[in-house]
Amino acid sequence: MLSKSQIGFIKSLHQKKYRKENGVFIIEGIKSISEFLHSSYQIQSIYFLPQYQSLLPKLLPNIKLFEVNTTELEKISALQAPQGILAVVTIPPVVDLDKNTLKNSFSLVLDGIQDPGNLGTIIRTADWFGFKQVICSANTVEVYNPKTVQATMGSLARVKVSYQNLPEFLQGIQLPVFGAMLDGNSLYETKWGNEGLVVLGNEGQGVTEEVIKLIDRPVTIPRVGQAESLNVAVSAAIFCADISRFLQK
Amino acid sequence: MLSKSQIGFIKSLHQKKYRKENGVFIIEGIKSISEFLHSSYQIQSIYFLPQYQSLLPKLLPNIKLFEVNTTELEKISALQAPQGILAVVTIPPVVDLDKNTLKNSFSLVLDGIQDPGNLGTIIRTADWFGFKQVICSANTVEVYNPKTVQATMGSLARVKVSYQNLPEFLQGIQLPVFGAMLDGNSLYETKWGNEGLVVLGNEGQGVTEEVIKLIDRPVTIPRVGQAESLNVAVSAAIFCADISRFLQK
Repeated sequence: MLSKSQIGFIKSLHQKKYRKENGVFIIEGIKSISEFLHSSYQIQSIYFLPQYQSLLPKLLPNIKLFEVNTTELEKISALQAPQGILAVVTIPPVVDLDKNTLKNSFSLVLDGIQDPGNLGTIIRTADWFGFKQVICSANTVEVYNPKTVQATMGSLARVKVSYQNLPEFLQGIQLPVFGAMLDGNSLYETKWGNEGLVVLGNEGQGVTEEVIKLIDRPVTIPRVGQAESLNVAVSAAIFCADISRFLQK
Repeated sequence: MLSKSQIGFIKSLHQKKYRKENGVFIIEGIKSISEFLHSSYQIQSIYFLPQYQSLLPKLLPNIKLFEVNTTELEKISALQAPQGILAVVTIPPVVDLDKNTLKNSFSLVLDGIQDPGNLGTIIRTADWFGFKQVICSANTVEVYNPKTVQATMGSLARVKVSYQNLPEFLQGIQLPVFGAMLDGNSLYETKWGNEGLVVLGNEGQGVTEEVIKLIDRPVTIPRVGQAESLNVAVSAAIFCADISRFLQK
């Protein structure tokens, strides 16, 4: 049985303001929770329907456990169809991005992604292809948005996401900067080498002028049909798959 | 100025039941509406804010035009941020799918896709890569769902979408049947040939047993990292890009 104030608190975490104020966010579903339990994230509390108790590990030190009923779970869940279990997780402290960790690998750079689902899907895709870092412009949607977290399907526990002033970050970086553009060289002929950044732009506006100047290798996914553009999570995935294919050769 | 019953009618079209009952669906945004105006779809009526009048073609025979205010548009729109213009479009009659039209090309086959956004994104991606047909299992989400229509970004005006009993449809089809599976051959080594179907399964469950039996070439997107799976619209896109690359060689 949860108190009104507990319910109110967890519900408040659906909003960015209160996540920031309290330094926590929520994750839902047994799969996500297992992945976060095996990560460096600190889970503070878990709220579960009785049938989920047996799925929880026996030893969960420093985690408060609360059995809840369906009505309570519906109130605290951010999902239309709650998944039986929800956890409150500490937002890790922001650490400076060590540019050396980007060497000898590929990372995605997101310039103003607005849709939380797109950001989450990109993180999930990055994880599938072994990309360990996603760098977001300051105006990219917040990664702890419940819709983003949900769309990562647990991959947020593994992929590092950082927010940067992109022009400053890209200035003088010692890596090839590729960019998904409509007027670049064909993706299929791109020699990726063994390291680099791939910049993807906002859903409607694409990459900002300031950032375009810092892209040295514009790349285009060749169009055969008539759609005007591709969804940004789709573009990101096609880039990741192409780089992954190149690296496996 | 719209009447209460006009507003009620258009709002009712947010629901599948009323779309089916009335044989119409809604599309929003000037881009989508332009694409549908240049297609075989029949637009019945357009509702627009005053500033959109000048964007409409001069001659729109058989289309009823209604200037609306922001409050009215917010009521009839299915979007969180209405795009200034909305149209009511006739659902075209279901016609038998002529299997001959699938020859010498590639088409996507969707087995139980549940998320309207995923279906829409897949249609948009298919359009970008010149795939002309998407064949859905009977239990795939309805294509006239406003979220699906929105995610197609106008591509629904060009890509043919049909609903089929998939096992019946695939039985004895004279085309190679590829399938996105977790235990198939590597995507990067696939010889696509010049025609075929690509089956993609439900978000959580994958392809159904009955349909798996009818797939003759299971294909897997090689995983490097640790995500358990890819979003289905992402998988579809990676397949489309790979086929497109193969065909351009």
